[in-house]
Amino acid sequence: RPRLEPKTGLQLTFEFRSRHEEAVASQQITDFFGKNVKRVLFVPYALHDRDAYTQTARVKFLSLGYEVDGIHEAADPVEAVRKAEAIFIGGGNTFRLLKNLYDNRVLLEIRRRVLEEGVPYMGSSAGTNVATVSISTTNDMPIVFPPSFAAIGLVPFNINPHYLDPDPTSRHMGETREQRISQYHEEVDTLVLALREGCMLLVEGDRATLLGSTHARLFSRGKSCVEFAPGSDLSFLLTAAH
Amino acid sequence: RPRLEPKTGLQLTFEFRSRHEEAVASQQITDFFGKNVKRVLFVPYALHDRDAYTQTARVKFLSLGYEVDGIHEAADPVEAVRKAEAIFIGGGNTFRLLKNLYDNRVLLEIRRRVLEEGVPYMGSSAGTNVATVSISTTNDMPIVFPPSFAAIGLVPFNINPHYLDPDPTSRHMGETREQRISQYHEEVDTLVLALREGCMLLVEGDRATLLGSTHARLFSRGKSCVEFAPGSDLSFLLTAAH
Ligand SMILES: [Ca+2]
Ligand SMILES: [Ca+2]
Repeated sequence: RPRLEPKTGLQLTFEFRSRHEEAVASQQITDFFGKNVKRVLFVPYALHDRDAYTQTARVKFLSLGYEVDGIHEAADPVEAVRKAEAIFIGGGNTFRLLKNLYDNRVLLEIRRRVLEEGVPYMGSSAGTNVATVSISTTNDMPIVFPPSFAAIGLVPFNINPHYLDPDPTSRHMGETREQRISQYHEEVDTLVLALREGCMLLVEGDRATLLGSTHARLFSRGKSCVEFAPGSDLSFLLTAAH
Repeated sequence: RPRLEPKTGLQLTFEFRSRHEEAVASQQITDFFGKNVKRVLFVPYALHDRDAYTQTARVKFLSLGYEVDGIHEAADPVEAVRKAEAIFIGGGNTFRLLKNLYDNRVLLEIRRRVLEEGVPYMGSSAGTNVATVSISTTNDMPIVFPPSFAAIGLVPFNINPHYLDPDPTSRHMGETREQRISQYHEEVDTLVLALREGCMLLVEGDRATLLGSTHARLFSRGKSCVEFAPGSDLSFLLTAAH
């Protein structure tokens, strides 16, 4: 497994299914942020109750030794991003999150701080979707209308979080997740990395590694999808030309 | 059960789970369109392969005695709507469907023909979503960016098609359908009628009736949701003030 190099890239995490997974993830968070980070800028835009969500995050991060600032508590959110030592964007509704990133004009500043200044970025669920090319492979409902589906673009591919394998016993007539992703590939050819519950993707500079406890699935337009086990080197996803 | 009054309103249908359901639905389609309708304008915009989708619909409607014109086959789609005896919008991806309705400038003309001239409108799945206030309660992936989420607005509420009850055994960490709809109600107060597989909603003038074989569920902001059995009179949904 590649050495963790905090403050040089971004990490995408998900919710955890067990205490063990949570303990492993806690270790990965501290490894990722490293010793120089004392405060984490938390972005609760994906949920309606920002204060409650920030409080939950605050308790969790305090247990790991980090102070938390809620971006919505700052008089100037862009300035808060400018000063952030690390950024964590939590989950909820992806459309609401992206709209709030645009409305508060922080999207480009987050991108600049992470890609140009190496500020560590960590996201969960919707916070993962917005780190990619676009939110076009979210599972969430379009409850609000953002000015665009284009996202922060920290990586040159898209992610489908909470990936679900087709259930052969289902009588549900809606599309399977796989069918939905293949409809996306009828429109554009951006790669889609589908992360099952328990997956994590670690990106440091030009290196990407699959972490966690479950396999991920890569969908490419016009090709069969490919499974990757935890520990897989996915650095090829970071090169512009696939 | 109220008498069917073809050509005075709109009908929203869904996919069928059995031959029996399909036979019942076939009868309802012919009852709804009635004897004066000979040709149905089929809108295949929700799927990528419009020709194949139209061919499927053509075979089905021919078996019921109707000719089918694909809207994409017309030189002028607005003119095709203007001349339509009946309109059927099929399912697929709701974002793609709505974007195509806007791009082809047929959205307002469909609205006008149905609401002002009583042309029967029937929709399935995505074709149901676009008949409502907005597509904000679709389950589909946002694979393309429409200019708005506002839809045809044939009824003053929203629909969640293919409604799924929460699965207590699931380890999936994404939101349940119920949670997603309640996130929608954190933003706006439009009523959401959730239709399980097998539900149909028949709207004729100022009368709305639940048909089909399964219960529907009504979500209102800040209230408990309410279940309705097949045969229920849902006309109260059509009044502007709820
Ligand atoms: Ca979500
Ligand atoms: Ca669909």
